[in-house]
Amino acid sequence: MSFQNPVFIPGPTNIPEHLRKACDMPTIDHRSPLFGQILHPAREGVRKVLKSDNAEVFIFPSTGTGGWETALTNTLSAGDKILAARNGMFSHRWIDMCQRHELNVEIVETQWGDGLPADRYEEILTADKSHEIKAVLATHNETATGVKSDIAAVRRALDAAGHPALLFVDGVSSIASMDFRFDEWGVDVAVTGSQKGFMLSAGLAIVGFSAKAMEATKTGSLPRTFFDVHDMAKGYANNAYPYTPAVGLLNGLNESCKMLLDEGLENVFARHTRIAEGVRAAVGAWGLDLCATSPDVYSDTVSAIRTPEGFNATDIVTHAADKYGVAFGVGLGEVAGKVFRIGHLGSLTDVMALSGIATAEMCMADLGLDIQLGSGVAAAQDYYRGHALASQKDAA
Amino acid sequence: MSFQNPVFIPGPTNIPEHLRKACDMPTIDHRSPLFGQILHPAREGVRKVLKSDNAEVFIFPSTGTGGWETALTNTLSAGDKILAARNGMFSHRWIDMCQRHELNVEIVETQWGDGLPADRYEEILTADKSHEIKAVLATHNETATGVKSDIAAVRRALDAAGHPALLFVDGVSSIASMDFRFDEWGVDVAVTGSQKGFMLSAGLAIVGFSAKAMEATKTGSLPRTFFDVHDMAKGYANNAYPYTPAVGLLNGLNESCKMLLDEGLENVFARHTRIAEGVRAAVGAWGLDLCATSPDVYSDTVSAIRTPEGFNATDIVTHAADKYGVAFGVGLGEVAGKVFRIGHLGSLTDVMALSGIATAEMCMADLGLDIQLGSGVAAAQDYYRGHALASQKDAA
Amino acid sequence: MSFQNPVFIPGPTNIPEHLRKACDMPTIDHRSPLFGQILHPAREGVRKVLKSDNAEVFIFPSTGTGGWETALTNTLSAGDKILAARNGMFSHRWIDMCQRHELNVEIVETQWGDGLPADRYEEILTADKSHEIKAVLATHNETATGVKSDIAAVRRALDAAGHPALLFVDGVSSIASMDFRFDEWGVDVAVTGSQKGFMLSAGLAIVGFSAKAMEATKTGSLPRTFFDVHDMAKGYANNAYPYTPAVGLLNGLNESCKMLLDEGLENVFARHTRIAEGVRAAVGAWGLDLCATSPDVYSDTVSAIRTPEGFNATDIVTHAADKYGVAFGVGLGEVAGKVFRIGHLGSLTDVMALSGIATAEMCMADLGLDIQLGSGVAAAQDYYRGHALASQKDAA
Amino acid sequence: MSFQNPVFIPGPTNIPEHLRKACDMPTIDHRSPLFGQILHPAREGVRKVLKSDNAEVFIFPSTGTGGWETALTNTLSAGDKILAARNGMFSHRWIDMCQRHELNVEIVETQWGDGLPADRYEEILTADKSHEIKAVLATHNETATGVKSDIAAVRRALDAAGHPALLFVDGVSSIASMDFRFDEWGVDVAVTGSQKGFMLSAGLAIVGFSAKAMEATKTGSLPRTFFDVHDMAKGYANNAYPYTPAVGLLNGLNESCKMLLDEGLENVFARHTRIAEGVRAAVGAWGLDLCATSPDVYSDTVSAIRTPEGFNATDIVTHAADKYGVAFGVGLGEVAGKVFRIGHLGSLTDVMALSGIATAEMCMADLGLDIQLGSGVAAAQDYYRGHALASQKDAA
Repeated sequence: MSFQNPVFIPGPTNIPEHLRKACDMPTIDHRSPLFGQILHPAREGVRKVLKSDNAEVFIFPSTGTGGWETALTNTLSAGDKILAARNGMFSHRWIDMCQRHELNVEIVETQWGDGLPADRYEEILTADKSHEIKAVLATHNETATGVKSDIAAVRRALDAAGHPALLFVDGVSSIASMDFRFDEWGVDVAVTGSQKGFMLSAGLAIVGFSAKAMEATKTGSLPRTFFDVHDMAKGYANNAYPYTPAVGLLNGLNESCKMLLDEGLENVFARHTRIAEGVRAAVGAWGLDLCATSPDVYSDTVSAIRTPEGFNATDIVTHAADKYGVAFGVGLGEVAGKVFRIGHLGSLTDVMALSGIATAEMCMADLGLDIQLGSGVAAAQDYYRGHALASQKDAA
Repeated sequence: MSFQNPVFIPGPTNIPEHLRKACDMPTIDHRSPLFGQILHPAREGVRKVLKSDNAEVFIFPSTGTGGWETALTNTLSAGDKILAARNGMFSHRWIDMCQRHELNVEIVETQWGDGLPADRYEEILTADKSHEIKAVLATHNETATGVKSDIAAVRRALDAAGHPALLFVDGVSSIASMDFRFDEWGVDVAVTGSQKGFMLSAGLAIVGFSAKAMEATKTGSLPRTFFDVHDMAKGYANNAYPYTPAVGLLNGLNESCKMLLDEGLENVFARHTRIAEGVRAAVGAWGLDLCATSPDVYSDTVSAIRTPEGFNATDIVTHAADKYGVAFGVGLGEVAGKVFRIGHLGSLTDVMALSGIATAEMCMADLGLDIQLGSGVAAAQDYYRGHALASQKDAA
Repeated sequence: MSFQNPVFIPGPTNIPEHLRKACDMPTIDHRSPLFGQILHPAREGVRKVLKSDNAEVFIFPSTGTGGWETALTNTLSAGDKILAARNGMFSHRWIDMCQRHELNVEIVETQWGDGLPADRYEEILTADKSHEIKAVLATHNETATGVKSDIAAVRRALDAAGHPALLFVDGVSSIASMDFRFDEWGVDVAVTGSQKGFMLSAGLAIVGFSAKAMEATKTGSLPRTFFDVHDMAKGYANNAYPYTPAVGLLNGLNESCKMLLDEGLENVFARHTRIAEGVRAAVGAWGLDLCATSPDVYSDTVSAIRTPEGFNATDIVTHAADKYGVAFGVGLGEVAGKVFRIGHLGSLTDVMALSGIATAEMCMADLGLDIQLGSGVAAAQDYYRGHALASQKDAA
Repeated sequence: MSFQNPVFIPGPTNIPEHLRKACDMPTIDHRSPLFGQILHPAREGVRKVLKSDNAEVFIFPSTGTGGWETALTNTLSAGDKILAARNGMFSHRWIDMCQRHELNVEIVETQWGDGLPADRYEEILTADKSHEIKAVLATHNETATGVKSDIAAVRRALDAAGHPALLFVDGVSSIASMDFRFDEWGVDVAVTGSQKGFMLSAGLAIVGFSAKAMEATKTGSLPRTFFDVHDMAKGYANNAYPYTPAVGLLNGLNESCKMLLDEGLENVFARHTRIAEGVRAAVGAWGLDLCATSPDVYSDTVSAIRTPEGFNATDIVTHAADKYGVAFGVGLGEVAGKVFRIGHLGSLTDVMALSGIATAEMCMADLGLDIQLGSGVAAAQDYYRGHALASQKDAA
């Protein structure tokens, strides 16, 4: 197995040296004060990354999917009505989870490539006079299509409708990479994982609950044990978990938050935008389109790139792995075979991004697409040269 | 934080150098064939460690508790009747989980320190003519009391009663350290985690399902998504997971199985017995009793040691951490304050065990117990000298 | 400190994951048989990499410079005459070392950028009827100029002259990356270090002695202790060193040799040629010249690239580090300010090389050179696409 | 290979987790300012550990032996007269090195087990009216015999004699573990390595030169290149080395100094004394003697323990390795077979020390010596209990 080249999948990301070492920890007693010295700062760090003053942060040995299950099972009861748009594979899977847990989902079918339709949400919420809808789901960044949505607009829709539903946001591929404002947007549950913006291995579900969401846990009657936030809260009060925590990953999360906050969240977001702009410049130079239908929904963590009609975009991914040892992402669901994805989140420099762009070019040329070698690279170089960070040190 | 001394908690264990390195992996594409080269051998290795030819092995980014939830939610339906003995904190918690998931548990209260009452199980199962009991829970090794139970006897009870209930075994602190026979004992679901006999960090729930248990998943209607074994099986068929796997830990698990199988399972078990016998010799020399009420239930992975009436056993644990930087386990639940625990599972040599014994002696003497310094050490030395392994190399 | 980008200095190289882990070793007893299990295979591996059946391999905790000192002090005596060409900084420094140790060097001044003048060597050796010349120095690859020399031709010069002088070869930046034939070329002492073709950190001087060189150690009277090969040989016979060895690095060297030999030396060399050809294609596309004056002396491990008259080539190196976080090599000695160097040895993929080429382009454009962005990248891409390795796995 | 047990050799020591990670560094450009950020603080840290304000600190990719060679070759000339006592293997080897480099050594033969005879030094120096003696060698801690010497007394001898000879001190197994006062004792060259008190792998020779020693380098004419301090000083002025430095080890050295200085040197020394006292209590309980002939020369870093007449002490070392996987040190030179050594320097806790003592007991009992199991352990426990550190945290 060669580990020479960076990965360009939309998570897990390349892991910074410092975080690999933070995770690679000898065993400590996870019921000792030592553990508390890792746990509490990690939770506090996540809270700051969420831009929240009071969110209750819970961290499970699990993944983002487990985070979704935490959101649903702690706050809702069988038969509860949910409002959700489906505009990609991850929003689709969250809807599927609701249905498995006997929730009643009103689905707003949305074109894959578009953002969440906040106006439709407003109409539906306004019409729901009896407030049957208990929660609104919003996928901040659709990893499958490279589309970001306007969560502030969803909040405005709720407010315009005067609707008390909880707002659940999937921030798995946005939090810690793109601007996310838990308090300002009135988010009730935010869900993410360790392996995206936090630049760690997969293995942690990270969730933030608002006071309102915590209140809902008192009535939410869906069965749960592993993902029960009350057990977790009780454990935290004793520097402990209700079961054995993933101590090394938590230590990594603590260090990751320190790195992000030291760099400054706005700098982190600007860095992601910068890298993404270079990739988008390359896509333009290739004469290709993004799956995302307009610039306002372009994701800064992943670009899904449409290939010409009749071409199987998945071949690029297979070819890149086989011939060049580079990992891109395939298209999923409705856009399978139609797009390939370049992940550009987490720990990535312009120099690394250029190697991914150069590889994509070689693959497309190898597979017969009419791509001029060096064209995308030149466009990205031009962008990166002209938009250098104040200091590369910030991008550590 | 000092990491100088070994830990003597009953899991997570000390992690062997080789496994720490195996887990500390750069990011790879978890949807690529590379990942299959880790996943499939790891599952096959676990199957061998379970002593099973055909068990379906599922590995979740979770913990043993998540493994329990996997067992229950995939095979059972609300209102199903369960038979379970309560003889320690972990059997207690499994019963509690059943109740949260709306299962109807018939509890056999058993003295903490005794093993599972297979005879009572047989009576109850025989009386259950209509086969309302859908599953029997059995905690192979009660980590709280240092008590191992006779799973073969539970199987015999089921067979004697001619009862078709599923047999679920909590092997969290026994599997890969003590003899476990999935096929021979007719186990239907075995549950463990990465952080005990497999000598890794916490973060994986590891379960084995029999064909009969897999059949039960077709009717089990408890809600589940994260722990759904069908999603998992579908993923495995494509070298993948239904969500992002904990690749490094899986790589570690694969290497752990190789280490265990290279050493030979019977050698692994003999090594655990040997280390445990030394600890028990020390306990005898101190004039103290184990919580486990008879030699046939002595656990080879953890010893819970009763301290004299009126003495708070938890003080030993606190004092050891504060003064000597050594971690022992406290008593839990009914035996809180009455016992302290020495974990002796996983990667531990006699030399390390002696340092734990010596530390316990110093702590007890410091706290005023009438313990002769060196007495327990001498008893353990005597045992270890006379029962050397054929080769220390086996104990790597 | 960011470690995101590959380095493009001509050593130390990027270190493969596997070798970093091999070097990061806990302490073992360096006087035990365990140590022998590392030492002897490492020496045997180096011998194979040298393409020698019988060379005595010595490994010192030192660097290539220490290897040179080992060669000289063990075989020569004060006043001995040495023949050496000076065609770059490293040959210059070896000559300087001879003079410090009171050797009498006949220097053949050679243009920086040219290879060793085997014909001049032959003339001088032929003229040396009384065989006053005791050793001939030959720098196989001048790291400063990116020039490789024809060692077989030097051997032919010695043979044509019927001259018994020892042949000492500096293979620091060639061995394990470019074809090197200790036995076939009649090399008497070969010198290298751990941080180039062996892809490790600096810290080991690695030398091979022929039987003839070993014979010379009996009369060589230059003072030496640390670098004494007899002490070393005596130690090796007892699985030991005359002082404390660098065990982790030796373990890494052993693993490095396994990697190289598993890949196959000819494949290793072909891989280096391939990466180098891509870099040279880029240089051509930029309209620049190499310092190396003709294709037969192009080095496959480092390219020294001439920049236009009046431009300070060192600015590229400084700018790349400051703005892009990428390390190239500066020009040294006579070519300081006139060239910058791209190291392309050791563990490097085409994808990584492209990122270095792209960075160099950005720097040159930033600094006002007339370089078309993407031009060098496109030329290299074209080469790499058409000259894929049979398997990327070989390039691990 | 098992790495479970601590090592009890007198260096290399057990390496703290934090230092292993500091050394395991990716490649950086060793000619960049980044490198200076490691190099200069490391040198400054060493200076403080030496308790010197102005010593010039040089760090070579080498070992303590290379440090000795640095001391001699930079300051002396062929034929110079040296005064040295021989009271163990390491002082013997330093004398041997002097002789190889054509220095004229006046040897004061001293019983192995005794400290340096400062009074004899004074007599000889006083008698040397013409000041032919250019340097006095003093081994601060004889690792072979576990004997520390009084360097202040040697300084007094020089001063009493009014003699201008340089004072060279071998502090390989004392510096950073036992009190060492470069300035106060008027040391001219102090020599140590990375693998003892600094708790790192072997691979660095660390030397401090006084202003007087630096002055002597102007006339010292012994041939040298690799160990030349002028080349080194010139390199340092440019954030560089005259060759490729061992960057990771230097980074480790920098972190090691921080750890030592954070703990406080006096605390570090007290910790070593404490661990050593426990070992000595055990030796007393066993009824055995130290090689060191009186308490004032007991070393706090290593104890050489005499075994009864007719018993081969080396068997203990072999047996411990084979049966228990524990490394002790053998006797060397005159005391080969007569002593075995327990190293107790660097990163070691009382808990670890007890495991070494317990192992030694088992070995001696196994080999037929009349040793009561647990007796040494009890004596050490008693000492450690009563002499706890203020905080274990200091012993990280």
